[in-house]
Amino acid sequence: MPPPVELDRLCVVLVSPRNPLNIGAAARAMSNFGFLRLRVVNPYDVAFREARSAMGAAPLLASAEEYSSLAEAVADCSLVIGTTSIQHRELLHPVWRLDEGAALIRQQLTSAPAALLFGSEKFGLSNQELSHCHWLINIPTRDEHVSMNLGQAVAVALYELVREHKAVDAPDVPEMATAGDVERVTASLLEALSISGYSTPATTEATEEKIRRLVRRMNLNARDAELWLGMLRQMLWKLRTGQSDVGIAVVPK
Amino acid sequence: MPPPVELDRLCVVLVSPRNPLNIGAAARAMSNFGFLRLRVVNPYDVAFREARSAMGAAPLLASAEEYSSLAEAVADCSLVIGTTSIQHRELLHPVWRLDEGAALIRQQLTSAPAALLFGSEKFGLSNQELSHCHWLINIPTRDEHVSMNLGQAVAVALYELVREHKAVDAPDVPEMATAGDVERVTASLLEALSISGYSTPATTEATEEKIRRLVRRMNLNARDAELWLGMLRQMLWKLRTGQSDVGIAVVPK
Repeated sequence: MPPPVELDRLCVVLVSPRNPLNIGAAARAMSNFGFLRLRVVNPYDVAFREARSAMGAAPLLASAEEYSSLAEAVADCSLVIGTTSIQHRELLHPVWRLDEGAALIRQQLTSAPAALLFGSEKFGLSNQELSHCHWLINIPTRDEHVSMNLGQAVAVALYELVREHKAVDAPDVPEMATAGDVERVTASLLEALSISGYSTPATTEATEEKIRRLVRRMNLNARDAELWLGMLRQMLWKLRTGQSDVGIAVVPK
Repeated sequence: MPPPVELDRLCVVLVSPRNPLNIGAAARAMSNFGFLRLRVVNPYDVAFREARSAMGAAPLLASAEEYSSLAEAVADCSLVIGTTSIQHRELLHPVWRLDEGAALIRQQLTSAPAALLFGSEKFGLSNQELSHCHWLINIPTRDEHVSMNLGQAVAVALYELVREHKAVDAPDVPEMATAGDVERVTASLLEALSISGYSTPATTEATEEKIRRLVRRMNLNARDAELWLGMLRQMLWKLRTGQSDVGIAVVPK
């Protein structure tokens, strides 16, 4: 009973998992529902080694990819979705209820790869980690007890992705930029802002998160990302060389 | 919105569970999704005692009811549903796919109590145990790996029962930028590109159209338009004053 979802286009990314039982449980649920691409960012080493012996998911764990940074782990994905137990995270990201978000993910998977991120057992995804995401999903839980076990959250999210067996009609969508390209746009923009004095050393970190989210909200397609990179490169060159065409200081409008 | 599920009319019944972690995980998922009535039939004693300390589900485990026979455990329920990993047991029972079966369970719960049974980790529900059931549900898994972890199976089944019934506000859609703001962003960007030498007088018109379309594809909300205007103003100021931080010409990357 193969579901029509392009399962091999989804990477499940566990960020800083600490408990080998949870890594094993996540892998088992992935195997149950047919998602075979596991990526692990900065796992607690012992936990990862122990998890590799987890029941029923050995082949999947053996082929799991390990990364030292989240940026690298999602670089080839055009859509990055975070999971959160908080239903209204200060509005920095849109938060979709799982069933609605899953429909959007399925649509994406018809044309391009996506990453679904799960944070560490204790803290979930940090703000820095969330800044790599386009949007978030929330599994609807009871207000009095929102925090789910990691393995169970993975199982529920993946179940929702395959529970419907209807094919999703793919509208014509342009190829989206990969997370790697989007991050390159972010980096160039940040450099231009830094040279321009928009961000100072004291404000850099906050600006960085703000700008990273801003660029994700642009939903860049692959061609537009190229265009932006070209424009920013040219501006950077001009900003660095400091050649003025007008020769006089102009007060910002 | 559909009517709320009468959660307190459903008993989750674990039959002969052996692993305290699984009992604890089942209880945690119940607590997450708002089902607070746990019954345990003939548990391995040590496991049950250890599970009582499971994280985040202590009150639920403390009020769990223990039975020595399945018949007693379901005596007050008018519908008894078993779970099976087998999709077509040469079964004497109808097997519903989870989403279809869940709809039937929800219907039942509007008027009378029901029991949802999960078998032991190793063997599932025996034929004798199944004989207490009216019908069965199956969580659709990959043919190559049908056997789910007990705690994850409980989580997925309970999620399905409440998935459409829990209110989570759709994300707040931010106020969109006006066409005037969008045009101001466009103009600032064009000016920056012109000063940087990205567009030349010969190419200006074509560039202008290209950039105008590009900026519209960003679907700017009002706040992001402000942010872009601020960034571009600062870059323009720097580009116009021509003060170089590095003091040397750098070839565009």
